Amino acid sequence: SGGVTAAKGFLAAGVSAGMKRSRKPDLALVVAEKAVPAACVFTLNKIKAAPVLISQERIEKGKAQAVFLNSAGANCLTGKPGHKDALKISAAVSDALGIDDESLLIASTGIIGQRLPVAKIEKTLPDLVAGLSKKGHALAAAGILTTDTVIKEAAIETAIGNTKVRVGGMSKGSGMIAPSMATMLAVITTDALIAPKFLRKLLCEVTDETFNVISVDGDMSTNDTVFMLASGASGKKIQPNTAAAKTFKAALKEVCEKLAYAIVKDGEGALRTMEVNVEGAKNIEQAQRCARQVALSPLVKTMLTGGDPNVGRIAGAVGASLVDFDPEKLVVYIGKTKVIAKNTALEVRSAIGKKLLTKPHVALRICLNAGKAKGRMVTCDLSKEYVHINTAYPT
Amino acid sequence: SGGVTAAKGFLAAGVSAGMKRSRKPDLALVVAEKAVPAACVFTLNKIKAAPVLISQERIEKGKAQAVFLNSAGANCLTGKPGHKDALKISAAVSDALGIDDESLLIASTGIIGQRLPVAKIEKTLPDLVAGLSKKGHALAAAGILTTDTVIKEAAIETAIGNTKVRVGGMSKGSGMIAPSMATMLAVITTDALIAPKFLRKLLCEVTDETFNVISVDGDMSTNDTVFMLASGASGKKIQPNTAAAKTFKAALKEVCEKLAYAIVKDGEGALRTMEVNVEGAKNIEQAQRCARQVALSPLVKTMLTGGDPNVGRIAGAVGASLVDFDPEKLVVYIGKTKVIAKNTALEVRSAIGKKLLTKPHVALRICLNAGKAKGRMVTCDLSKEYVHINTAYPT
Repeated sequence: SGGVTAAKGFLAAGVSAGMKRSRKPDLALVVAEKAVPAACVFTLNKIKAAPVLISQERIEKGKAQAVFLNSAGANCLTGKPGHKDALKISAAVSDALGIDDESLLIASTGIIGQRLPVAKIEKTLPDLVAGLSKKGHALAAAGILTTDTVIKEAAIETAIGNTKVRVGGMSKGSGMIAPSMATMLAVITTDALIAPKFLRKLLCEVTDETFNVISVDGDMSTNDTVFMLASGASGKKIQPNTAAAKTFKAALKEVCEKLAYAIVKDGEGALRTMEVNVEGAKNIEQAQRCARQVALSPLVKTMLTGGDPNVGRIAGAVGASLVDFDPEKLVVYIGKTKVIAKNTALEVRSAIGKKLLTKPHVALRICLNAGKAKGRMVTCDLSKEYVHINTAYPT
Repeated sequence: SGGVTAAKGFLAAGVSAGMKRSRKPDLALVVAEKAVPAACVFTLNKIKAAPVLISQERIEKGKAQAVFLNSAGANCLTGKPGHKDALKISAAVSDALGIDDESLLIASTGIIGQRLPVAKIEKTLPDLVAGLSKKGHALAAAGILTTDTVIKEAAIETAIGNTKVRVGGMSKGSGMIAPSMATMLAVITTDALIAPKFLRKLLCEVTDETFNVISVDGDMSTNDTVFMLASGASGKKIQPNTAAAKTFKAALKEVCEKLAYAIVKDGEGALRTMEVNVEGAKNIEQAQRCARQVALSPLVKTMLTGGDPNVGRIAGAVGASLVDFDPEKLVVYIGKTKVIAKNTALEVRSAIGKKLLTKPHVALRICLNAGKAKGRMVTCDLSKEYVHINTAYPT
């Protein structure tokens, strides 16, 4: 437990600047004692929000002291005025913290195309800074939520040699979630001692296997960012190609996996989650393409909503991915039950099918038998509630 | 008017073999007087239904006399027994017609993974054949529907030189609709006199611009086929690189466009349709990729359902397509109203936005200003009704 402040050397806070109707927290702040090694992974979307462009520039030097996030507007498609707004808010935050503005990273999430209420945010900054504490992690996690229904935190303590090292974090995201980042933000902290370059390498690798394999609706956001700060407060040095690095990476992956899974589980309108495991693909690109096609298929997703094993939809999506395989050799399982083999949909009694598909978490296993590569995606079902939320939002 | 029998030399029929609960027609037949030049375009899906595999083989020789279609089962993922079923039904149909079995093309649509009721179908064939007539086009068009709510027909008469030539057809499709074919079937007929090779070329070109630019849900079916038969009964010869070919292609395109648009308009749960026109792309591949990303975005589609101009979703999808463009130069219009320019979402008063997006047909124009290539997709909105239909189907 402890979320984003589980690691030594970090404080966090979350408060409301009154930008959400619900008056729930809409601002969040995570602060280290000094500028520490830091790394980020940003959205690949060609349309990038102002805070993304600013943080991209600032992270170049591999160090940062704090991350400031707001969840009441994406500050994207706001042109030059929006860029100025972001710089103005950033300056006010670093002033309030008494830190170098260049060592502050920023993020925004919410509606695209609306200006941020700069004055409201500035007025609330003293409260935000005053709230910084070890216990502030949960309020900070609340301060970044939009259509999310629950806060998303994870933390791990692991022994590396004789030293205990902690990795913790928080994330948000619920709609506009797709690989290559999602409408998601995450802040990960650790008290391990890691050089910026290696931290960046680890974060990229782990993000590819966690945040980049989740999807709610296949839409890629303009604001996605994963921030990671390493305070070094545990004293444990993590260097490339060591057993310590391996243990540390496993801990980082576990935290990111939990935070990523929490996003899918809280997917807009989602009743249940589904993992799509593809094996026996010709290469990794094909394995991932196949997993993605199945995970994004509205027909597979509505099958999951209805709990009815209409397995032709799975085969249809596998075939539509245009990866190499022989239909005669394709084998598909739902859980441990074989549902497709020898180019035939196997009979699954309706009651059993219903039981397989109405679990809170459904695992599909797709064996292409065309090679050795594996791929994986984690997604959720597509319900009327998803349509309702996105039809009504924002009005 | 006249649908698939508008062209001289074709008869059609549709009857019920009792496979649909509604007792509506579930079998359709289109027959020419003799084996005539024919061409097909098939789904690219790697999983292909038995009738697709059989028709693919038979069309190789470029001639066909009849097309037999059923809409109460896809006969896909039914293994070798399903393949035998298809051959058995085909033999029975050609027997009943007294034609060479190799000149019969076949198609199926409906649930994947269930065997066809061969005996039921065989028993109904005398009725089907007895029903063949010029007026049978509407019953044939009904015989191929699944979740469709209306029959889809189109026909054109055009003068080429001094001769009147007719092109007509029918189509079906409502869900699992995506480019590279959809859960759709279409049969097009003409009385023009065209060699099989040139017919095939024309059909491929026109399909790429019509059936292949529509999408309901981005899912690609295992059964899609467009059949085309040319009876030559008008006596007008159409040869490559002539004015006649140009006129004929325009007529063919108009028929295919109408049949394709009818599919989107009748998209599962659809309230309205949307065309996405991309211009100024670096090349055609990028133009089409961008149009496709926007047309398939669940967030853009639910925006269309809600009628609320949340234009950030359009920009998000354009950026997510990863095509080359400068965000500063991106200009987006809904109808004739500019909604994005200079990396800024322009203010559109809610009432005006609502008016723009709640028309029966909405046109998006996306100017990338990065080149000269154009792309286009036609889609529909994503409603709760879509989810309802696909959650409940087939049980």
